[in-house]
Amino acid sequence: MHKNKLVVVGVGHVGSYVLADAMKLRLFAEIATIDILENVAHGEALDQAHATALTYMSNVDVHAGDYSDCADADVIIIAAGPSVLKDDKNPNAIPDRASLTGKNAAVIREVMAEIIKYTNEAIIILITNPLDTVTYIAASEFDYPEGRIFGTGTMLDSARLRKVISQQYGVDPKSVTGYMMGEHGFTAFPVVSRLAINGIRYDEFGTHFPEVETLDPEAIGAAVVKSAYDVLNGKGWTNAGVAQSAITLAQAVLLDEKSIHPVCTILRGQYGHDGDVALSMPCLIGRNGVEKQFGVALDEWETAKLHASIDYIQLAMKDAKTGPFKK
Amino acid sequence: MHKNKLVVVGVGHVGSYVLADAMKLRLFAEIATIDILENVAHGEALDQAHATALTYMSNVDVHAGDYSDCADADVIIIAAGPSVLKDDKNPNAIPDRASLTGKNAAVIREVMAEIIKYTNEAIIILITNPLDTVTYIAASEFDYPEGRIFGTGTMLDSARLRKVISQQYGVDPKSVTGYMMGEHGFTAFPVVSRLAINGIRYDEFGTHFPEVETLDPEAIGAAVVKSAYDVLNGKGWTNAGVAQSAITLAQAVLLDEKSIHPVCTILRGQYGHDGDVALSMPCLIGRNGVEKQFGVALDEWETAKLHASIDYIQLAMKDAKTGPFKK
Amino acid sequence: MHKNKLVVVGVGHVGSYVLADAMKLRLFAEIATIDILENVAHGEALDQAHATALTYMSNVDVHAGDYSDCADADVIIIAAGPSVLKDDKNPNAIPDRASLTGKNAAVIREVMAEIIKYTNEAIIILITNPLDTVTYIAASEFDYPEGRIFGTGTMLDSARLRKVISQQYGVDPKSVTGYMMGEHGFTAFPVVSRLAINGIRYDEFGTHFPEVETLDPEAIGAAVVKSAYDVLNGKGWTNAGVAQSAITLAQAVLLDEKSIHPVCTILRGQYGHDGDVALSMPCLIGRNGVEKQFGVALDEWETAKLHASIDYIQLAMKDAKTGPFKK
Amino acid sequence: MHKNKLVVVGVGHVGSYVLADAMKLRLFAEIATIDILENVAHGEALDQAHATALTYMSNVDVHAGDYSDCADADVIIIAAGPSVLKDDKNPNAIPDRASLTGKNAAVIREVMAEIIKYTNEAIIILITNPLDTVTYIAASEFDYPEGRIFGTGTMLDSARLRKVISQQYGVDPKSVTGYMMGEHGFTAFPVVSRLAINGIRYDEFGTHFPEVETLDPEAIGAAVVKSAYDVLNGKGWTNAGVAQSAITLAQAVLLDEKSIHPVCTILRGQYGHDGDVALSMPCLIGRNGVEKQFGVALDEWETAKLHASIDYIQLAMKDAKTGPFKK
Repeated sequence: MHKNKLVVVGVGHVGSYVLADAMKLRLFAEIATIDILENVAHGEALDQAHATALTYMSNVDVHAGDYSDCADADVIIIAAGPSVLKDDKNPNAIPDRASLTGKNAAVIREVMAEIIKYTNEAIIILITNPLDTVTYIAASEFDYPEGRIFGTGTMLDSARLRKVISQQYGVDPKSVTGYMMGEHGFTAFPVVSRLAINGIRYDEFGTHFPEVETLDPEAIGAAVVKSAYDVLNGKGWTNAGVAQSAITLAQAVLLDEKSIHPVCTILRGQYGHDGDVALSMPCLIGRNGVEKQFGVALDEWETAKLHASIDYIQLAMKDAKTGPFKK
Repeated sequence: MHKNKLVVVGVGHVGSYVLADAMKLRLFAEIATIDILENVAHGEALDQAHATALTYMSNVDVHAGDYSDCADADVIIIAAGPSVLKDDKNPNAIPDRASLTGKNAAVIREVMAEIIKYTNEAIIILITNPLDTVTYIAASEFDYPEGRIFGTGTMLDSARLRKVISQQYGVDPKSVTGYMMGEHGFTAFPVVSRLAINGIRYDEFGTHFPEVETLDPEAIGAAVVKSAYDVLNGKGWTNAGVAQSAITLAQAVLLDEKSIHPVCTILRGQYGHDGDVALSMPCLIGRNGVEKQFGVALDEWETAKLHASIDYIQLAMKDAKTGPFKK
Repeated sequence: MHKNKLVVVGVGHVGSYVLADAMKLRLFAEIATIDILENVAHGEALDQAHATALTYMSNVDVHAGDYSDCADADVIIIAAGPSVLKDDKNPNAIPDRASLTGKNAAVIREVMAEIIKYTNEAIIILITNPLDTVTYIAASEFDYPEGRIFGTGTMLDSARLRKVISQQYGVDPKSVTGYMMGEHGFTAFPVVSRLAINGIRYDEFGTHFPEVETLDPEAIGAAVVKSAYDVLNGKGWTNAGVAQSAITLAQAVLLDEKSIHPVCTILRGQYGHDGDVALSMPCLIGRNGVEKQFGVALDEWETAKLHASIDYIQLAMKDAKTGPFKK
Repeated sequence: MHKNKLVVVGVGHVGSYVLADAMKLRLFAEIATIDILENVAHGEALDQAHATALTYMSNVDVHAGDYSDCADADVIIIAAGPSVLKDDKNPNAIPDRASLTGKNAAVIREVMAEIIKYTNEAIIILITNPLDTVTYIAASEFDYPEGRIFGTGTMLDSARLRKVISQQYGVDPKSVTGYMMGEHGFTAFPVVSRLAINGIRYDEFGTHFPEVETLDPEAIGAAVVKSAYDVLNGKGWTNAGVAQSAITLAQAVLLDEKSIHPVCTILRGQYGHDGDVALSMPCLIGRNGVEKQFGVALDEWETAKLHASIDYIQLAMKDAKTGPFKK
């Protein structure tokens, strides 16, 4: 008898929030936690297990596990490896991408090597940074079925975009349609040509909200990046938004929702790239993972931004000695 | 027009989880975070605000605030002050209660002094440890209306009890009725005389589950304490269970559920004490906070345990120079 | 102490589903039902009350009430009066609008006359058909504060539009942005110029979904109407979709979500009309009800459709002897 | 790839509510409706499908189906056949059990004959009345794996019991532990010896609630029956409570919750009966359906009541020419 099962790999700042959010869904019968710190995996699972005794919580079988738990998992969320942290000595510094790349390229290769011993059916959702490089490695080096592995990508950046717009215009962010594309990081850009408030296009914002200044695309992009930084510099890391992003995707998979979200996959012919870079564009998410990519047409500014973002991602990929840069 | 509003005071390990859980409820229109580290209060709120742009999240107005936010709050949850952390050098040590008492007695007095400038209507739920002493101080020194202030108390210990039983017997912890009473801490004890699995009493467990060894009350209590320690020593702190406890109480208040939970209040004649100690017994929780206390009859073992727990709590109260020990 | 309260007026086919959906929200502490058949109001409330004893249900105080329950209500949903039913003898007939108009114009006037004895603060959400005429009467004849009263309007027709598109293209309807405007009924029309699948515009559908035939606007509108008829002719009435629409609006009000939904209000200068007709266009819904109307620009086809719809609504208004036709 | 799937057989008064409640769970990826009135099955599914386009609804693939949909179903809920309706000419009459028995014995045999063509893995939850007889037929005549088929039984009567107690004592019904056993119907009886309010036993109610009169067991049982009648005579039928009961069980199955609920199964040695009657006692519900029966000890009054209830059920079974009465 099938039981909905989630495995969370890495239960640090991010993975512990993924776990907490997953516990609230009433969708999983079983959740296993894996961490190189086994006592942490155990402690996180047990803390959540205690909460299942409370009134509105479902009785999830949540426990520390190992990679053999992947054998019958429906979804595996990978949040392993160190994450971007605030540099207390240099709070305005951009985190040292290179060092994170080297470390986490190794982490993802270890994790994937373990997972594929047990499954090639589970849908794998990646959160580990640098996300696009990590996704490229995981999706290209392990012969995992295409589509069953993808990264949260700019799903979080896009949520931030919608929140920035929603706060500026005083509307529910769920009434805003729009997304960031490209890298999950500073070179992501808003696809302003497709940004809308309940069908009201960006170039009409001024008509319906004359009291609000319409920011230009650069300024909107900058506001999104600033919003991310405000979290990082405020609390020292970011986790709530990305955890909820991953869980939203996991639910779309389990319920076969066919929802469209901007997530990270390897390009297959879109924007003149085929197999040499991973980045985020809108994708259809269903029971088989990414079931379709939407390489939406971009305007001139967006196209330039996309290519700059691709260049940046490929630099990181080089650091990780991956893809066409492997030799 | 009334809007359901929560204020979370202290967004460290525990408060950040309270916030995260509150965001999922679709019950609050507004949530304000307060922390002595203003940037942390801001970062936590903003991280959660980003998540509101995701599919199933309600558009909570979540923001960093200050004590003036308490003026129109329905519920205030206080998780301020340092919490019990694992001592990495001495992992099996019992945390130094006394030092925590001194520090957090000061914290709660500062926090309460601020809150009462703005409200005496909000229901205040306390999490700060040592919980019973903190509750005694907050409930007795500030002339806040009786019942509108109480501590999560043994609600978490009780969840752990039900989980321990549920795992031993292979049943949903929500099918277990039972609670720990006394101190929120090591001297809490299981009220085994009222423990039941869907109406099957403790002394009948063996009849219906012959394959499971029936633990004696001491062993059950020890298993609950061990379970708490396993979380603390595993992840370094505990937060998921207590956060969900506080949120369950907040919901019971907002929805006026009249739910009965073991929470911490000052005794008013029960067990031979009147106004000189705060501890946990079952209480009815509604829109006015604690609307009734149930000083349930205890058996001999439980009564002895209760008085030992009272002695222990009163020692901590002495450290805090509170109540009858104030002089 | 404030408690979230809903009043449902009319608990027939539609109102009983509104009640059932409201019970699941964990948002209301109290729900009162009112019906001219007092035993039905009592039976529906009691049946739902029984369900509150089940595991995941909140303890809603649900009970039969009377109009005095409106005094402290946050939201009042009106589903009173006969609804459109399948004509079993003539299953393809268009229901006799005129007779429904006469009957329900009287019903809504009686209901409003009662409500205003007790409140002008509650947000009133109308479902009774013919919706636009009923909304016009309720919003114009009783001096109720503007914005605090509105009809579900084409919120349901719009959900059907998104579902029609979503089924044709194999995507989550929540990934479709789009709405029907005008009358809640056969003359509603799809605003195809603003229809999009996650930012992919209608005129790009063929590019991204080459295997799907792009229907022209007339055909899309016809498919939406057919979908409504399929429900009506299938089960004999429609209630699930409209109940969920009303509840979604009620939640947007209680949580002050500032969500934009197509709902029915009186025009205030949009499209060349001021105060002489009520119809649906996108509106911002918050704690004060309709806080903003968006008279979005329409293309030529849509504009013609809008005016035809207005003519049709005004005919029904004439039958009801309301508005500028009153004399 | 597994997708959680529910089949609802019979979408009349009860089944349509089961469907509506199931749509709210975010647990099922697919729901199929079956009814002898195919247009009703289609209309109900389509009405619910429209609602999936609204903000907080998951994208359930809900559609009219046929029995082949059972092949990959996780859970099948059977609400087929006429239900107990108010007799408008004789509102105080007890419904004619015999006629319902004959009709629905035939219905359940037809339905089961179809289902077993496609599956013996799905968990089957029966609602059709007379529930105990219907359960006996379905569970004994078709060689369906023991435990995978059971009836909602006194789960609803038990919810009513807890609500009756909760209203009398002013507490959350979820804080009441207790159940009705025996027939789903008038001969069900409250197991007062195991009734408790958060661990406070029935014989202590007077101590903690001196202002409330303690009803004797007969009066409690009568109040529960009256409560059921008030719904039936009020609205003409009952559906909300039983639908939520069935859905709670379906969730316990899917999430393998190991929850204990009073449901209807064939006795296997309990109370001196083995295989000759089906009735409700507490059972553990998990991914395999009923995984354990709890033949709890009863006091003298309860035992007498149980045997009277068994006699009554067996009379109905005789009408249905089933079980030991078959010859």
